[in-house]
Amino acid sequence: MKCLVIAAGRGSRLSSKGDSKPLISLLGLSLIERVILTAKKQNIDDFYVVTGYNSEKVKQHLSVFSQSRNINITHITNEEWEKGNGISVLKAKKPLNENFILLMADHVFDGSILKKLKNEKIADGEVMLAVDYNIETNKLVDVNDVTKVLVEDNRILDIGKNIKKYNAYDTGIFLCSPAIFSAIEENLHNDDSSLSAGIRRLAGKGKAKAFDIKNDYWIDVDDEKTLKKAQGKLLDTLKKTSDGPVSRYLNRPVSTMITRLLLRTSITPNNVSFFSFILATLGAFIFFLGGYVNLVIGATLAQVSSVIDGSDGEIARLKFRATEFGGWFDAVLDRYADAFLLFGLTYYVYVLNWNFLALLIGFLAIIGTFMNSYTADKYDGLMKRKLEPGKHYFRMGRDVRIFIIFLGALINQPLLILVIIALLMNAENIRRVVVLYKNE
Amino acid sequence: MKCLVIAAGRGSRLSSKGDSKPLISLLGLSLIERVILTAKKQNIDDFYVVTGYNSEKVKQHLSVFSQSRNINITHITNEEWEKGNGISVLKAKKPLNENFILLMADHVFDGSILKKLKNEKIADGEVMLAVDYNIETNKLVDVNDVTKVLVEDNRILDIGKNIKKYNAYDTGIFLCSPAIFSAIEENLHNDDSSLSAGIRRLAGKGKAKAFDIKNDYWIDVDDEKTLKKAQGKLLDTLKKTSDGPVSRYLNRPVSTMITRLLLRTSITPNNVSFFSFILATLGAFIFFLGGYVNLVIGATLAQVSSVIDGSDGEIARLKFRATEFGGWFDAVLDRYADAFLLFGLTYYVYVLNWNFLALLIGFLAIIGTFMNSYTADKYDGLMKRKLEPGKHYFRMGRDVRIFIIFLGALINQPLLILVIIALLMNAENIRRVVVLYKNE
Repeated sequence: MKCLVIAAGRGSRLSSKGDSKPLISLLGLSLIERVILTAKKQNIDDFYVVTGYNSEKVKQHLSVFSQSRNINITHITNEEWEKGNGISVLKAKKPLNENFILLMADHVFDGSILKKLKNEKIADGEVMLAVDYNIETNKLVDVNDVTKVLVEDNRILDIGKNIKKYNAYDTGIFLCSPAIFSAIEENLHNDDSSLSAGIRRLAGKGKAKAFDIKNDYWIDVDDEKTLKKAQGKLLDTLKKTSDGPVSRYLNRPVSTMITRLLLRTSITPNNVSFFSFILATLGAFIFFLGGYVNLVIGATLAQVSSVIDGSDGEIARLKFRATEFGGWFDAVLDRYADAFLLFGLTYYVYVLNWNFLALLIGFLAIIGTFMNSYTADKYDGLMKRKLEPGKHYFRMGRDVRIFIIFLGALINQPLLILVIIALLMNAENIRRVVVLYKNE
Repeated sequence: MKCLVIAAGRGSRLSSKGDSKPLISLLGLSLIERVILTAKKQNIDDFYVVTGYNSEKVKQHLSVFSQSRNINITHITNEEWEKGNGISVLKAKKPLNENFILLMADHVFDGSILKKLKNEKIADGEVMLAVDYNIETNKLVDVNDVTKVLVEDNRILDIGKNIKKYNAYDTGIFLCSPAIFSAIEENLHNDDSSLSAGIRRLAGKGKAKAFDIKNDYWIDVDDEKTLKKAQGKLLDTLKKTSDGPVSRYLNRPVSTMITRLLLRTSITPNNVSFFSFILATLGAFIFFLGGYVNLVIGATLAQVSSVIDGSDGEIARLKFRATEFGGWFDAVLDRYADAFLLFGLTYYVYVLNWNFLALLIGFLAIIGTFMNSYTADKYDGLMKRKLEPGKHYFRMGRDVRIFIIFLGALINQPLLILVIIALLMNAENIRRVVVLYKNE
């Protein structure tokens, strides 16, 4: 499917952040890169970008991007970019002779809006605008600047920044038929060449439909305040329903801070996975040296590793670099790291009193931990199917395990750590078997 | 989709095996149960069974079956069953007023034939017969008894047991429109009320199409010889492309023999999984007792457990009792059993010389083994996608592992077992990571 991205504006209110608004950096990507990658993730693959202000620089930026990500981008220049965004849309009239998606380069939005919108049906001569009915509750919007829409029965009746009566916001995400071009052209003589004016003209003919985005998010990045809001919202999306309690309240908040720093570098998610693994393995090795100080150092390394282990996935998702292999590789390394840590701890306890019981408990902790990961896929699958939106479910996993090691080491109770992990993990595994059996 | 099953015949040549042909037992199911379950697995869910010879007994058998498997079966009686199978088809004329699948209760066949056939399109007034073009190579057919078909451009030109010119066999699997009923009726006056005669009449009008089953199997069970062939073929289907070398040449042949015995009992697949687990755990426990004799006993129990571990899945598949939970439960128990065995062996070696190295190697064997199972899903998934039909791929798995324990114990080299398993398994895991990375 073809997709037109309007990237012609200047963004004077954000000039301190970059040369040109589409190039402003946000969590490792420029705004326009994020818009294109969000669309690409929804299998939209043929992009037309209209540039205007600082056109050459934007084009150059996109050329590098299009090569590195293997994305098809056609450049269109609008010299008259100051005349309004309708003109920018018009410049793409020739290549866009079928239905297409229209996006603004300076918007940050939930990919699921596109996922649904691109499958909507519009008749010849119609356009469909994704609108947000949460006009009371949406805190991400600058009410003075946003374009308002009046909708009745999914038909747009009026649209504009200064209309008095409205019940929705314009999200800047459209599904268009080529009729949009003639609608804008018809307005040229009365000197209102904005996109909104074009939509208003179609609305007058009953040809402008509205699409409800429900509770999906979108942000028009216009100034530093909205840029900050966009960053907060994106970081917020990193939370996972499968995050355990320690992850939710400790690891994840810290790892997102680390992620923000790492996004400025070229460090890859797999680099982070491997570094986290090395850190935990080092911790395990230090356990073998014996002594309380080494116990605490090893456990601290393990906990730090556990926190950092959240960053690989966060970087991958924020940079649209997530791969199936990456997630799997991370999981495989985590399993080895878990085993090394518990073996180190088992040895630590064993040399304290040379008691076989320590070996047995350590072994049970290791197998319980393994099986906890082994059963996680199927258990998570079931839980996610049954989960109500916005909720999370009980999850006894790696975050809890490593945190127990950390706390137990601080209070110098290494045997207790193994006992607790052996009991908790094996009990949880049996519980999962029962839950899955009952839900067969 | 509706499915008509003809179960009216007597099967005099098999009278020594049972009261009525559809009730003859084959690997844990009666012939008619297998036909219905094969169809049900392809989401065919509304069955009409025409009974004739020994009608009450067949009905009673199916009533119990339909309740225990929760299958919708409507009974139709054909008192004139001796007049030919066309009459049996005719008896179902009323309820079958749309396209339906027509099957013979005494045929054993590959479900994939139905999977494809039921999605074929036929026009009003047409029927489609699944035919087998392997007339030279199909060794499962009794050439004197089989119905032959002459096909040209997917249209049936002639059909019958005694036609001279033919290029395919009639498999007895049909996709019918209700036109089949009038075709049979039109033949009644000239006293040929067979199904083949009905098809021949439609063929004369160009309304009988042929569907190529390619290399899928089918067997018309008519006498003890074909019953035996059907059994051999079904047992043959139990081999899996993911079977490792020890499984293929040792465990699987033995486990299918065990399965044949267990199919006569009401032992469930989960029972077998659990018994196999207990056996291996017992073996592990015996390792802890120390001494060569115990080493051999423990390892023998492990190997026996490994063989039996093939039977659960075989019973499940042959009885159409395979569930997602069952397969998963078996895998979870296998992981615990593996870990117990290796821990027992590690302890056995450790008490021989109290050397830490034994603990380390044992630990590496345990982690390597576990990771071997952890990485198996993804590796198998990739391999199966890339596999050519009829081939199998390199698989270093549980069958090899347990066999190494068994052989190593016999020659009294427990440390060597751990070294080999630690090396083999961890090397295989690294190899899998590399293979999956390259195929990302």
